[in-house]
Amino acid sequence: MSDAPLGVFDSGLGGLTVVRALRSRLPRERIVYLGDTARVPYGTRSSDTVLRYARGCAGVLMKRRVKALVIACNTASAVAVDMLRAELDLPVVGVIEPGARAAVALANLAEKEGRAGAGRIGVLGTPRTIASGAYARAVAALSTRHEVIGQAAPLLVPLVEEGWLDGDVPRLAVERYLRPLIDANVSVIVLGCTHYPVLKDVIARVAADMAGHDVAIVDSGEVVAQTVAALLDERALVSHAAAAVPPLELVVTDLTASFSQMAERCLGAAAPNVEEIDL
Amino acid sequence: MSDAPLGVFDSGLGGLTVVRALRSRLPRERIVYLGDTARVPYGTRSSDTVLRYARGCAGVLMKRRVKALVIACNTASAVAVDMLRAELDLPVVGVIEPGARAAVALANLAEKEGRAGAGRIGVLGTPRTIASGAYARAVAALSTRHEVIGQAAPLLVPLVEEGWLDGDVPRLAVERYLRPLIDANVSVIVLGCTHYPVLKDVIARVAADMAGHDVAIVDSGEVVAQTVAALLDERALVSHAAAAVPPLELVVTDLTASFSQMAERCLGAAAPNVEEIDL
Repeated sequence: MSDAPLGVFDSGLGGLTVVRALRSRLPRERIVYLGDTARVPYGTRSSDTVLRYARGCAGVLMKRRVKALVIACNTASAVAVDMLRAELDLPVVGVIEPGARAAVALANLAEKEGRAGAGRIGVLGTPRTIASGAYARAVAALSTRHEVIGQAAPLLVPLVEEGWLDGDVPRLAVERYLRPLIDANVSVIVLGCTHYPVLKDVIARVAADMAGHDVAIVDSGEVVAQTVAALLDERALVSHAAAAVPPLELVVTDLTASFSQMAERCLGAAAPNVEEIDL
Repeated sequence: MSDAPLGVFDSGLGGLTVVRALRSRLPRERIVYLGDTARVPYGTRSSDTVLRYARGCAGVLMKRRVKALVIACNTASAVAVDMLRAELDLPVVGVIEPGARAAVALANLAEKEGRAGAGRIGVLGTPRTIASGAYARAVAALSTRHEVIGQAAPLLVPLVEEGWLDGDVPRLAVERYLRPLIDANVSVIVLGCTHYPVLKDVIARVAADMAGHDVAIVDSGEVVAQTVAALLDERALVSHAAAAVPPLELVVTDLTASFSQMAERCLGAAAPNVEEIDL
């Protein structure tokens, strides 16, 4: 079983930022990624529909005999992680809990250092993720001391999909979205959408400029990769394959013309061959 | 029949820019607007699915006994206008033909005046509308002399939905999208998405600044309203109601928290009461 691949799914291609972090942290692990691009975005669907879609994605990956499942989608994580854990006989990791855990640890550290506003955690996310309160609940489950300030940032996903990653437009958009978080003196900002790590440098730079000091940024991809690494170790599921980085298996439900560019942007490397399936 | 309402549908709320133009041009007409907000956007669906959705929307409006049907959605117009005309026993107007007709008329005028690049028509639209070539086909059906240069402008819809209508971000985004059209010396720019009229002033100003002279802008809403006015007159369907502007009937398939703001932005006036239906 330890030589089986990790299964990762997302509503689209943004979850490839999580794959990028997994490959960097766990270079010997095989990964199968499913992007449900025919039904993206999940954020506008009802919970019942998202549950059904998440079950469908998990089913595709189970058939490919994955050893663990990563839900690299905030909406699906919020709605489906408990159900998939109950239904499936393998470890299931979402993006929200690891992000909340890392944010709480960083906020505690800032508190110990006695910084102003140190208890406050900022979250950037899609309007649906922010409205759902999923991060506030996940933080509250870990600690009642931390106030969560959510900021919907709807333009950041189209900026990433358009490939506008530097210059004035992303900088000015990020400034507008960060203003309420910086004014509230947050000590940590969680990137609560799998697209946002592509803009991480811009977000970190603008936040530091506005605050006058560095602001910790939680990249869900990185903390998910840490969580998966610990889980594989704990359950003796670490791959014993040879040192070479195995090829990524990429599966989508709709192969669009912009696929390669967007995949490369999120993955930080050329996209491998891709398979299209019907779901 | 002349006192029956006009029926207008769109995948979301952007089509309210068409309603705004209809109410300005035809203030005595009753209007029922259906925004299929639960299934927005149509642009990412297959043609079969868009056909099925368009039939569903038309069915809702037919039950409300409309006298004419306006498809205020570029995707649905491209895919479904011929089918709905064949199936329904009432006038059906899409947004693409009237926009193409107005653009050709303006390009012909510019040609007569001997302007450089006068034969060229620029179209701003969503990636799907531009990739579909719907405007190029509609222009070619009217005249073979005019070259159509399409420019996908994916950030403009989220800018309108976010309400960022002035300042640096929309100006810089519009500059980037207009650059290839201005470089090609187009004499006309068609706003090929029902969201874009909300940004019409910015687009017109930036185009004039970049070109060094005014560039004609075709607002589909206005040309659709002219087409509907002519059609009602021709078929003796003009309303004989009293002078007061009748209330707008607004129906959506999913009532989101941002509804009122977005509706007001497109309508240019406070949104009336809204009814939510299941479709």
